[in-house]
Parts: sequence; C-alpha cells; structure tokens
Amino acid sequence: MVKIHKLDQIKKTLDDINLDEIIESGFAAYSVGDVITPPVGELVFEDPPGDTHIKYGYIKEDDYFVIKIASGFYQNYKFNLPSGSGLMLVFSQKTGALDTILLDEGYLTNVRTAVAGQIVAKYLAPDKIDKIGVFGTGTMARMQVQFLKSITDCIQVVVWGRSESSLDKYKKDMQEIGYEVEVTQDPNNISCSCNLILMTTPSTVPLLNCSNLRPGMHITAMGSDTHDKQELESRILNQADIVVTDSLEQCKLRGEIHHGLNEGHIKLNEIFELGQVILGRKRLRTSEEQITVADLTGIAAQDIQIAKAACKALEANSS
Amino acid sequence: MVKIHKLDQIKKTLDDINLDEIIESGFAAYSVGDVITPPVGELVFEDPPGDTHIKYGYIKEDDYFVIKIASGFYQNYKFNLPSGSGLMLVFSQKTGALDTILLDEGYLTNVRTAVAGQIVAKYLAPDKIDKIGVFGTGTMARMQVQFLKSITDCIQVVVWGRSESSLDKYKKDMQEIGYEVEVTQDPNNISCSCNLILMTTPSTVPLLNCSNLRPGMHITAMGSDTHDKQELESRILNQADIVVTDSLEQCKLRGEIHHGLNEGHIKLNEIFELGQVILGRKRLRTSEEQITVADLTGIAAQDIQIAKAACKALEANSS
Repeated sequence: MVKIHKLDQIKKTLDDINLDEIIESGFAAYSVGDVITPPVGELVFEDPPGDTHIKYGYIKEDDYFVIKIASGFYQNYKFNLPSGSGLMLVFSQKTGALDTILLDEGYLTNVRTAVAGQIVAKYLAPDKIDKIGVFGTGTMARMQVQFLKSITDCIQVVVWGRSESSLDKYKKDMQEIGYEVEVTQDPNNISCSCNLILMTTPSTVPLLNCSNLRPGMHITAMGSDTHDKQELESRILNQADIVVTDSLEQCKLRGEIHHGLNEGHIKLNEIFELGQVILGRKRLRTSEEQITVADLTGIAAQDIQIAKAACKALEANSS
Repeated sequence: MVKIHKLDQIKKTLDDINLDEIIESGFAAYSVGDVITPPVGELVFEDPPGDTHIKYGYIKEDDYFVIKIASGFYQNYKFNLPSGSGLMLVFSQKTGALDTILLDEGYLTNVRTAVAGQIVAKYLAPDKIDKIGVFGTGTMARMQVQFLKSITDCIQVVVWGRSESSLDKYKKDMQEIGYEVEVTQDPNNISCSCNLILMTTPSTVPLLNCSNLRPGMHITAMGSDTHDKQELESRILNQADIVVTDSLEQCKLRGEIHHGLNEGHIKLNEIFELGQVILGRKRLRTSEEQITVADLTGIAAQDIQIAKAACKALEANSS
C-alpha cells in the first residue's frame, strides 16, 4: 500500500528533523562517491517559460531510492499560483516498489536548498555580517534569509527586484517576521552595503559583476540551475579567493560555474566540492578579507536525504 | 487538487480507449519531431539486480507533460511480488503543476509495450502465422500473445523458459484462456516451428542466433531495454531483410540494435523507425520470404499517449 502525504502533514514533521545534519551527510556521501546519481533529467518549456528537473538516485546499500520532480514556471503569478511545484517519490531499493509519495509541492526542494545555503554560509561567510543582500523576492529569497538565523543575528536585509509590487510585498512580509528591509532596483545598493549576498532569481543575464565585488564578501548563487540561467558575471569566479560548488560533475553543465569554465575564467581543479569541505570539518574562509562564492545547483543527494528523513518522521508521528 | 487513481480503476478504463490508434499516433508524432523527449533516465541496482527507467516528455503545444517511472526487479518472485512496478505522473504544460498520479504498478507500461508489439506485427509479420514462439514466461510473454489477437487467429504457442515450474504455470494459465501451449527449454524448438517470435526476457546473453533464422520469420524483441540486455545474436540484424526500431536515437544506446551497431553488423541508415512506417500507411513486409526484426526499447511517446488517454477516460467515467 503506497503511503501518500500532503504538504501540511509534511511541513509539520520538519521540526522533528535535524536538517543541516542530514543534508551535510548527504553532501559528504556524495563527495566520497557513495551516492549513485545520474545526470539531472530536464524538460524546458518555452510558452509559457518553465523548466522541470528530475533529480534522482540512491545511497549505496541503503533501503530506498528517491526520484524528485521540481518545476519552476515563472509566469504562474498570472494564475495566482506559486512558480514552484513538485513531488518526491520514495521507492524500495530491494524490490523497486513505490513506498511513499510526498506531495510537497516543491516545498522540500526549497527547504533542502535553503539548508544548503545555510551550510555554505557556515563554512564561507564572514564572521560579522553587515547586511544580508538578496536578489529576488520569491520563496527562496525569503526562506534562505530565515535559514541563516542559525549562522548570524543580522536582521538587516537589502532586497533587489524588478517589480516594485513584489519588492513591497517582500518588505511587508519580512518585516512582519522581524527583519529590517530596504528595497532597491540598483544592484550597487546591495553590493556597497551587504557582505553576505544571496542570488535567488531565474535570471539569464548577470545581475552582479566584478565592479560590485568588495573584500570580505560572500555570495551564494542558488538561482541558476540550468544551462542558460546566470546571475553572476563569470569573471567573478576568477576574482573570488574561494569557489565552492555542490557538485563538480554537475557544475560542468549547469549553474554559474559552467559559464566560467567555458570562458576560461576558472578551472575545475580550483573549485572545492561542498561535501569535501564538510568532511574537512573546518571553515574554508581563513581571513575576513577573502571573497568567497558558492554555486549551488542542487543535487539528488539532498533530495534523497530530506525525502527519507520526512518519511521517517511521518512514520514516527503516525505510530 | 491532485487526482490519484489506483490500478483497478485504471484497468477498467482501458476498454474505453482505442489503444492502437493512440499509440500509433504517438510513434508518428515522435518520428516527425513533435515529441520533446530527453534521454531515458536510468538507475541500475546490483543486489538484488534491478533497473528503474524514467521516460518523460511532452508533445509540443499539448496541454500536459508526462513522467513515467517503471522498474523491473527480477528476483521479486522470492518475495511473491511481480518483477514490474511503476507509476505515471501527468503535469500541466502551462503551470508545471501535478495534475494526476496514475498508480498503475507498471500495468500501463506493459499495455503500451504490448500494443507496440501488436503494431509492429501488423506492419511486419507474415500473413499466415504457423505458431507464435515466446521467449520468457512473465507478464509480457502473456500479454503480448493476447494483444496479437487482432493480428492473427493463431492460438498455437511454443514457449521457452529456464524454469520448469514457470513454464508449467504459463501453459496452465494460457490454456485457460484458450491457447494451445507447448513448453520447451530448447530455442530450436521455437525457431523450427514458429514464424512469429516474441523475445520478452531480461537476458544478457543471446537466446536466438543466426542458425535459428528461417525465411518468412518475424521477430519482435522487447525484453532488452538497457545497454547490457541482449536477446538476439547481433548478426541476426545483418541477416534480416527489414529491421525496425521504435527510436533511431534510443537504439544507439540500448536494446538489440546498439550491439549490432557497435559490432558493425548493421548501420543506422539501414533501420526503419516505427513512426515513419506508420506514416507510410502500408505493410513494410513485401514478401512472405522476408526475415523481419523489430527492436522495441519503449519510448516516452507511448507513455505520454497512454497516460493522457487513461486520464481522459477516468475523467469521463467519473462525471
């Protein structure tokens, strides 16, 4: 009998999960080669524009395998729908049988992405955060800021967006939960005041360039997850002192780094893989002057870990 | 609200669907380039042995896209479970939102595969079928024979299998529904008496070789759908007068043909694609002496078509 869980049930169980621990161990397992994870499956749509990603795989000698489907359709606001949607499927590694459907509507993908941002900030962000800069006003622009609570007390946020109404809504919503928010349509207003910057848009043209870099700045780029999306001028990767990716394999094809590789601004052997950083058990940043960049395109190991943990917590709660 | 349908509901609706019409139009749409279908996603498991395939895509300017997951775990009989399982997911092409989950347990995959066998038999099998030869005793070895009813009145079946108990069970079950069944463990007993042969096993060593070929024989190979599986000695592809595949693109990587391509026994431009054959609207076999082979690895277009048709029929039945 297939178990089926809806979003409200899933949300309730997340408090029972040590999210950064399970996601860190997923990255670590991936980087030591314990996760079987084929290339990302991808469908791209033009009218209306959207993309669907299938991330899937399994940890060797584990009980389950996971197939995660997540979509971003960026004109869904016209239908009063969130841009993100999706589900996670958990199967037995012994029989292939479907065990559980998590109808998370893309929520678990958002959470595991935000947790990854939290993890890279722990290893890379400067000790003292002046202000948090955010490109984008959507779900990840909100969730990622909230997940940084365990890393920093900073509540000053400067947010960049193209739409004034979205900026106003972001400001209002985030102020309600305790943040002090400035809005801007000029990227320079972020780069001159913020030393922890989050890129969360589906932009295909760079929003930050080398002239925006300042010593001590950390940038987490999590919006670009396809071949075409790009939020950072790729020369930034050359200027940065430390560049981290969640997957050396995947960053050859998608995200910020593949643009930098193609244009010769960075080499693969100059990039750290997050799982290896985690296994090193120490902060990668060694000075407050260093410029650091993390390029996260999201890997199946995160989906596998959060789906399994959600199933376990749901099971415990139902018994 | 996501619609979720179980196997018994799905089975009931199939009578309302003109299966060969929808699957033929899927193959035709694929062959004229109207189906966006990335490479098959695949997970391979070693202990216990199994494989999971993700086939997915969409017809341009259609309302939906489909992601199909189907697994074969060949030691499931030890747990008294069928080897096949799976589900189909239907999403909106306008918003990315999940519309319907078809918990078909792999049944729709079996049906669309059997329908493809029926279609190739229509275009390739000799006019007069002496006996139907079947390699394998599983679900497809049964279903495929039954789906040939629309092509031939022949009820004589010779079945090959490795296990005597499986052969006995096959014979008993098929006799109950009106077939006359001989069992054998020698492939020659099939090749000397049957002129329509169905390969339905997950074998990785060829079960039929060139010495088994006789004029007028048609072989449909549908068991091999991975890189490693192989049911036919690849020189058979060289000896055959006509070779058809469901996908010229996919057969480069999986099924029987890629072995033949790699070993130089056949060239890609000597192979017909099924959708083109269907668009030609005439039998490809032009003489009763020709040897014909169809290599089917199963394409997303079939899954898209059967999933959409099932949803439509389920919707009609519920209203």
